[in-house]
Amino acid sequence: MTPRYRGIIPPMVTPLTARDRLDVAGLERLVERLVTGGVAGLFALGTTGEAPSLSYRLRRELIEHTCRFVRGRIPVLVGITDTSLVESATFACHAADCGADAVVTSAPFYFPAGQPELREFIEQLLPELPLPLMLYNMPALTKTSFSGEVVSWALDQEKIVGLKDSSGDLVYFRRMRRLAAAARPDWSFLVGPEELLAESVLLGGHGGINGGANLHPALYVSLYEAAKAGEVARARELSSQVMDLSEAIYRVGRHGSAIIKGLKCSLSILGVCDDFMAAPFHRFHEAEREIVRSRLDELGIHR
Amino acid sequence: MTPRYRGIIPPMVTPLTARDRLDVAGLERLVERLVTGGVAGLFALGTTGEAPSLSYRLRRELIEHTCRFVRGRIPVLVGITDTSLVESATFACHAADCGADAVVTSAPFYFPAGQPELREFIEQLLPELPLPLMLYNMPALTKTSFSGEVVSWALDQEKIVGLKDSSGDLVYFRRMRRLAAAARPDWSFLVGPEELLAESVLLGGHGGINGGANLHPALYVSLYEAAKAGEVARARELSSQVMDLSEAIYRVGRHGSAIIKGLKCSLSILGVCDDFMAAPFHRFHEAEREIVRSRLDELGIHR
Amino acid sequence: MTPRYRGIIPPMVTPLTARDRLDVAGLERLVERLVTGGVAGLFALGTTGEAPSLSYRLRRELIEHTCRFVRGRIPVLVGITDTSLVESATFACHAADCGADAVVTSAPFYFPAGQPELREFIEQLLPELPLPLMLYNMPALTKTSFSGEVVSWALDQEKIVGLKDSSGDLVYFRRMRRLAAAARPDWSFLVGPEELLAESVLLGGHGGINGGANLHPALYVSLYEAAKAGEVARARELSSQVMDLSEAIYRVGRHGSAIIKGLKCSLSILGVCDDFMAAPFHRFHEAEREIVRSRLDELGIHR
Amino acid sequence: MTPRYRGIIPPMVTPLTARDRLDVAGLERLVERLVTGGVAGLFALGTTGEAPSLSYRLRRELIEHTCRFVRGRIPVLVGITDTSLVESATFACHAADCGADAVVTSAPFYFPAGQPELREFIEQLLPELPLPLMLYNMPALTKTSFSGEVVSWALDQEKIVGLKDSSGDLVYFRRMRRLAAAARPDWSFLVGPEELLAESVLLGGHGGINGGANLHPALYVSLYEAAKAGEVARARELSSQVMDLSEAIYRVGRHGSAIIKGLKCSLSILGVCDDFMAAPFHRFHEAEREIVRSRLDELGIHR
Repeated sequence: MTPRYRGIIPPMVTPLTARDRLDVAGLERLVERLVTGGVAGLFALGTTGEAPSLSYRLRRELIEHTCRFVRGRIPVLVGITDTSLVESATFACHAADCGADAVVTSAPFYFPAGQPELREFIEQLLPELPLPLMLYNMPALTKTSFSGEVVSWALDQEKIVGLKDSSGDLVYFRRMRRLAAAARPDWSFLVGPEELLAESVLLGGHGGINGGANLHPALYVSLYEAAKAGEVARARELSSQVMDLSEAIYRVGRHGSAIIKGLKCSLSILGVCDDFMAAPFHRFHEAEREIVRSRLDELGIHR
Repeated sequence: MTPRYRGIIPPMVTPLTARDRLDVAGLERLVERLVTGGVAGLFALGTTGEAPSLSYRLRRELIEHTCRFVRGRIPVLVGITDTSLVESATFACHAADCGADAVVTSAPFYFPAGQPELREFIEQLLPELPLPLMLYNMPALTKTSFSGEVVSWALDQEKIVGLKDSSGDLVYFRRMRRLAAAARPDWSFLVGPEELLAESVLLGGHGGINGGANLHPALYVSLYEAAKAGEVARARELSSQVMDLSEAIYRVGRHGSAIIKGLKCSLSILGVCDDFMAAPFHRFHEAEREIVRSRLDELGIHR
Repeated sequence: MTPRYRGIIPPMVTPLTARDRLDVAGLERLVERLVTGGVAGLFALGTTGEAPSLSYRLRRELIEHTCRFVRGRIPVLVGITDTSLVESATFACHAADCGADAVVTSAPFYFPAGQPELREFIEQLLPELPLPLMLYNMPALTKTSFSGEVVSWALDQEKIVGLKDSSGDLVYFRRMRRLAAAARPDWSFLVGPEELLAESVLLGGHGGINGGANLHPALYVSLYEAAKAGEVARARELSSQVMDLSEAIYRVGRHGSAIIKGLKCSLSILGVCDDFMAAPFHRFHEAEREIVRSRLDELGIHR
Repeated sequence: MTPRYRGIIPPMVTPLTARDRLDVAGLERLVERLVTGGVAGLFALGTTGEAPSLSYRLRRELIEHTCRFVRGRIPVLVGITDTSLVESATFACHAADCGADAVVTSAPFYFPAGQPELREFIEQLLPELPLPLMLYNMPALTKTSFSGEVVSWALDQEKIVGLKDSSGDLVYFRRMRRLAAAARPDWSFLVGPEELLAESVLLGGHGGINGGANLHPALYVSLYEAAKAGEVARARELSSQVMDLSEAIYRVGRHGSAIIKGLKCSLSILGVCDDFMAAPFHRFHEAEREIVRSRLDELGIHR
């Protein structure tokens, strides 16, 4: 048995043209860009996809179009993270109806659940899900981490198939991988921060859910392949390019929104999709857009 | 001009009989208990009301029944806090249709908004709201506090009518009150933690949105009246009783859920409403229920 | 039995003329200002006194001069907070030799001690101390709070005589006072943040260790007296003046150092003592000094 | 030019027999164990060395003996971290007199310095130091991180020679390395958490200051060599052994002290040195010691 998901699975940005209005044409271009860029799957409605900021209606629309544009060429994973178990379950059914491959949930994120409460939440959610589930560890935004005890319990649940870890803490990532090593060779361990993709895959991780792959899928795919093959020098070089992109694009803005703003602005400059953002964020102003434009040139990133 | 809201406005628990099932009869008894207990208003769908854990459908149902049971005897304030501006606005319209008096929102709570983003979020929300808005400062759960700059801006918005502060930080509370003192004598400053009700009202606050008022409305109303009248000795005595209740009922459980669990369990023992809780929480087990029962006896709290 | 300490006990700034050089003349003027201002005691080498930033040699010198200048007119409390128990104990002996009345310690602040470790630390320190001990709760800087369990244990130790709470959390303050109410009527509960002096004393606290009392001792003493007497309107008015001072003087600088800088700059302008600060802080530049000067004028604070 | 320090530099535990009493014979055995284990240097008086908990007298004694036992065979780095610049500088002079090779300082850790204050602190400290300085990033305990701006400034200071990063955040580590890449090829970037040694060195880091190297220096040296040589499979295997040690030994205790307790207990079982600990910590009780003993057997770690 091998991990269900390996490689680069971009956390897709959600193209918008206005409040509560999907950029359908932009979405189609983005999906095509990613599929032809060689990615191993798509993760829709994650943090990078601004999922919690979108209306339920728009989230449903996004999934419908995404699955339609992908046409089964790669698996689609759908974020169902919510504060309400009922809404999470409803959304998972919609994702299944649209043809998604799996759903993804972080911890409920208003009330910081205790670990036993977190386990029970997942336990109650599981039978409602028509699709496999991937856990999504995102403590900076959910205020709680999946503990070793909860992950150990999850390893006994056939329907749970992996962990995406966006904690930035590779010690945690390795500890969780160790727990799964013998029990679940089919679990996928995917890392969130792209700056850690090389390190995690060199040490045995299975890939990355990295925002930058929206912008330059081939770079991330190449880095993953090099690291998987144990080509250290090449992984180091490609990882250095990822750092260049990260430093150039994600630090133009301030606040936690800088990464998503940088990505959407870049995709807009490249002509892929609109850079409208859902509240509480807003797109870059012209001055910041100019900075992004010149940095994309320096990085040699074109449509 | 005087503050729009003064006195005790309980953050009403949401009576449930099962997942996604409202305890309508229990809700009616609870509303009656509170109205006849002398409270100055009701706050539905706050943190104590487990709002983020409920489905949108159930939230709508709750508002409909609540307004119907209240019959205009006191104002109903409705929490519309959400991560999606679109959903917040939709919900505010529903609240207005049902006859609510005002809506209440905290900061969007998945992405930690920067202060300019937070201001813009409220700015964009305002024209969508058919009712006055009260801000709700709850940094422990939203990861962000309304800064002095944002509150100063809010003071210029006629539609914003006050601040509920659940930070537990009375220095913050006083600083915000100072900002409003001259500009907006109609603003209400209400404190969340009931253990600080006496202190805040003695120094000029306008009342409390205190969970314990679900259980013993008369105690909180009396304390508010004593503090407002400057009767220090009596305020101290009644505040000590609030501390007794807090220590007895809110510390039976562990985790952040202990307060809501203690309140719902108490109301169930008193025969007011069911104590089912929305995921990720669950009601107390029998052993904890027995502890709560005996403590209610010691406190002399009866239906 | 009544609390050992009641009233205003300023956490004295440490006047310096240069690195590792005490401003002895300034210290004498400051001590005289405080004693004649009506304060109930002096707390030397606290946070406001920049104690951790000073060399041990200078700390010893400060204690010697302070006790000499005070001449027994009021009690002198000496901060012995350290990361090393051995150094704390040594310093307590020096304080006793100089004629101090009590010593004060927070939790050791490099390693965040677990609560059992914190209790043992105090337990091991106690027999080494030739003077009574006051606990100092300062979680923002020590990373740990004295839990209810540890305070309950402390109530059984005759040599421990009170708690200074600088958490800013009045719920904590009240919970600790409740623990002591029956057991130790001789314990003193003193509040750190001056913006909470009125509230805490109205509800039964015993006074304040408030930085602003360095600058305007009479204001704080009057506020304490009004609150103690239950004169709500007067307490509110004087508390408002404290807020004026706090907003005017403590927010000129940025960073955590703004309060101490504001105090030292003010005292320098008033001609009381030099405003040199120990690293990592430095005195205000001329522009900020001018702001402070004009605000002192507006507040009507003169030497 | 190459980095001044490369390889494994254990943060040496401080052997004690009682409060304020050095285990001199144990120290000699420990030093010999490390030197013959192939380490590239010794770091005395770091976090693992319980430095802040020791008296100044004992710290001086430790340095004297350590340098004497090392006999110049490897460089000795000495922690001078303090809250007082004066004491830090004094201690650095003592280290130089004893023959140490460099000194190491984290941010001052009582007051959380703003970044400009942190820079000035280092700037004022530098001329007082008779030895090269390595920065030590330890935000969990000092409440502040060396920002990119401060590190960029430090790169211009000839006397500063590297950065030890114990943040556990490899993104930070990589960003700092990038800053230095062109400017200072002589800087050393050493990682604190041993679970990240393989990852950081594979990607270009220069080694580790890893607590476990006290216990099993050869394992860490081998891992470093494998990673440096780009032998991915071997690095993965050895890193897995480091994880085994970490899981087995560092999780017997609770609280932040578990790692140091586990290390000292292990060294005591192996007959290297006493396991007495400075307050606020204490050695393991017999039950925990038995667990450690059996785990050392399982790991095959012997004297």
